[in-house]
Amino acid sequence: MAVDVPALLADLDDEARRRRALARLLTLVEDGSPEQLREVVASLHPRTGNARVLGITGPPGVGKSTMTNAVAGELRSRGRTVAIVAVDPSSPFSGGALLGDRVRMQGHHADEGVFIRSMAARGHLGGLSFATPQAVMVLDAAGFDVVVVETVGVGQSEVEVAASADTTVVASAPGMGDGVQAAKAGILEVADVFVVNKADAPGAGKLESELRGMLELGHATGQDDAWWPPIVRTVAVRGEGITELVDAIDQHHEHMASTGGLADRRRRRALHGVREIALGRVRERFARLGGGDDALLDDLARQVEARGLDPYTAADRLLAAVEQG
Amino acid sequence: MAVDVPALLADLDDEARRRRALARLLTLVEDGSPEQLREVVASLHPRTGNARVLGITGPPGVGKSTMTNAVAGELRSRGRTVAIVAVDPSSPFSGGALLGDRVRMQGHHADEGVFIRSMAARGHLGGLSFATPQAVMVLDAAGFDVVVVETVGVGQSEVEVAASADTTVVASAPGMGDGVQAAKAGILEVADVFVVNKADAPGAGKLESELRGMLELGHATGQDDAWWPPIVRTVAVRGEGITELVDAIDQHHEHMASTGGLADRRRRRALHGVREIALGRVRERFARLGGGDDALLDDLARQVEARGLDPYTAADRLLAAVEQG
Repeated sequence: MAVDVPALLADLDDEARRRRALARLLTLVEDGSPEQLREVVASLHPRTGNARVLGITGPPGVGKSTMTNAVAGELRSRGRTVAIVAVDPSSPFSGGALLGDRVRMQGHHADEGVFIRSMAARGHLGGLSFATPQAVMVLDAAGFDVVVVETVGVGQSEVEVAASADTTVVASAPGMGDGVQAAKAGILEVADVFVVNKADAPGAGKLESELRGMLELGHATGQDDAWWPPIVRTVAVRGEGITELVDAIDQHHEHMASTGGLADRRRRRALHGVREIALGRVRERFARLGGGDDALLDDLARQVEARGLDPYTAADRLLAAVEQG
Repeated sequence: MAVDVPALLADLDDEARRRRALARLLTLVEDGSPEQLREVVASLHPRTGNARVLGITGPPGVGKSTMTNAVAGELRSRGRTVAIVAVDPSSPFSGGALLGDRVRMQGHHADEGVFIRSMAARGHLGGLSFATPQAVMVLDAAGFDVVVVETVGVGQSEVEVAASADTTVVASAPGMGDGVQAAKAGILEVADVFVVNKADAPGAGKLESELRGMLELGHATGQDDAWWPPIVRTVAVRGEGITELVDAIDQHHEHMASTGGLADRRRRRALHGVREIALGRVRERFARLGGGDDALLDDLARQVEARGLDPYTAADRLLAAVEQG
C-alpha cells in the first residue's frame, strides 16, 4: 500500500479532507505495514490524551449498537464530538464493512461531529488487543471529545479491550438466557456502569434485581473499590434512559478525575499499549522465521509434530533465533 | 503451589489415581508456574499425537454444551474414550467451576471413559491461546481417544482455539438473530461440519437454506478446498441427529487422513503451540519488568502517558531490556 503518511496527517487539520484522511489512517491501523503504523502512531501521539474513552460491552443481542448510537446522539446534543470504534466480530458491522458503517450512520448523517468505524483487526499480528488502542489514539489525535469503543463482551480479547477505557459500560438485557451467566465471564468485574436495556421487556425487573444482588454480595464491585456501579434502565430503540446513562457516565468520569483513578487507568492503558506493540514486534519476527519449507519455525513445528522435540525446547530455539536477529 | 510433577505423571498410569492426577495437571496448565508447566508438557509430549482433536464452536445459546455431551455419549457408545475441554467465558461452566463440571457429568456419571474440564485460562500470560493447546496435550497423553475443545465462537481467541482442531464443528440455531451474522465473524470460514441445532424450532429450515446458500456462493468453503462441509440437523436435547453428526465428523477425519490434510493441520497446530509458548515466555519477561513504581515497564508507561515518549519508542526500549536479559 503506497501511502503518504505525512500528507494524511496534514489532512487531519484540513476540515474538507479530514474524514477521508481519518478513514485511510484507520485502514493503516488495520492493514498497514508495521513501519507505516509506527509512523502514524509516533507522529500522532503528542496530540493525544484529550479524548474521553468510553467502553461499551455486553453479550450479542443486548442492543449494543443501538445503545451506542443513542449515546452518541445524546453526547452530540451536549455539544461533544464523538467517534465510535465498533469491534464486534459477531456483528454485521464488523469486517471493515463500509455498508454497515453507512447503516449505522443513520441519524448521524451529515453530522461532522460523529465518526463511526468498524474494526476487523484480523489482518494484524496481535489482533484486537494490538489494533484497537492504536485506532483510539488516531481518533483522539483527530480531536474527538469522546471515543467510544464498542465490543462484544464474550471473548477474552474483546472484554480486555473494553475494560481499558476510562469508563466501561456493561450492557445486559432480559431474555438472553440466564442473566447471571455473564457474571462468570469476568464481564461484570469490569463494569463502571451497568445498563439493563430492553427495560420494557418481561424479565427486566428480575435481571436488575439479580445484578443488584450481585453488587451487594460484592461479586461485581467494578474496577475501582470507591465507586459503586449504578444500574441504568434503558430502552435504547426509543431513546429512553439515555440521558440518565450519559449522566452516569459523566459522574463516573468526574469521580475518576477527582480520585486520581483516571490517571491510574490511563497509565495502565499506556502500559498495555506499549506491551502489545512490543509483542506485535516479536510476532513479526516470528512471522519472518515461518512460512516456508526451509524456515526455522516450520522446521521446529515439524520436529515437534514428529515428537523429536518438545514444544518448550522448540520455543527456546525460536526465541534464541529471534534474539540473534 | 508445591506439586510433585513426576509423581503426578506416574499417577497417570495408575487407574485408581488417574482422574485425580489429570485434574491436578490441568490445574497446573491453568495456574502453575512456567517451570512446572514446562516440566509437565515436555514430559508428556512424547506420549501425545494419538488423540483426535475435535473443536465445537458457535455463538452463545445454540446449545453447544448439550451437543458436546451428546456427541461424547455417541462416541462412548462407539467404544471411544472422550475428554472435553470447555472454554466458554460466557458459560456458567467456565471459571474452573467444579459445580458446572459436575452438572455436566450427568449422563456420564461414573463413566471412567469420559472426562470433562472447564478452562478459565485467565490466570495465564497468553490466556486461552496459550493454555488450551497444552490442556489438549495433557489429555492426549493421558490416552483419551478423542479430545473435544468446546469454545464460544464469538471472540477472536476463542475461534482460533477451536479452528486448530483436526475437525471443527460450527454450531448454529434458529432464533439467534440473523443467522448470517455469524458469517461476518470469520466463524463459518473455519467450519468442517455445520450443525443446525434446535432443528425442530421455527426458522431451522431458513437457517439451513442460508448456510447452504453461503456454501454455494463459496463464502464458507471451510479450511480445506477439497472438502465440502456438510450441514447436519440436530435436536441435541433429545439426542436427534447426533449419530449423523458423529458420522460426518468421522468422514471428515477419514478425508483429512487420506489427503494429507490432517498432517498439515497438526503441523500448523504444533507451530501455533510453539509460537504461543515463545510469546508466553516474552510476556513473562515483560511481567518481570513491570509491577513496581521503579520498574522499567511502569516507568515507560508513565513517560508515554506524559507524552514524553511515543509508544513505539517505549516498546523498543522494553524489547531491548528484555533481550539484555
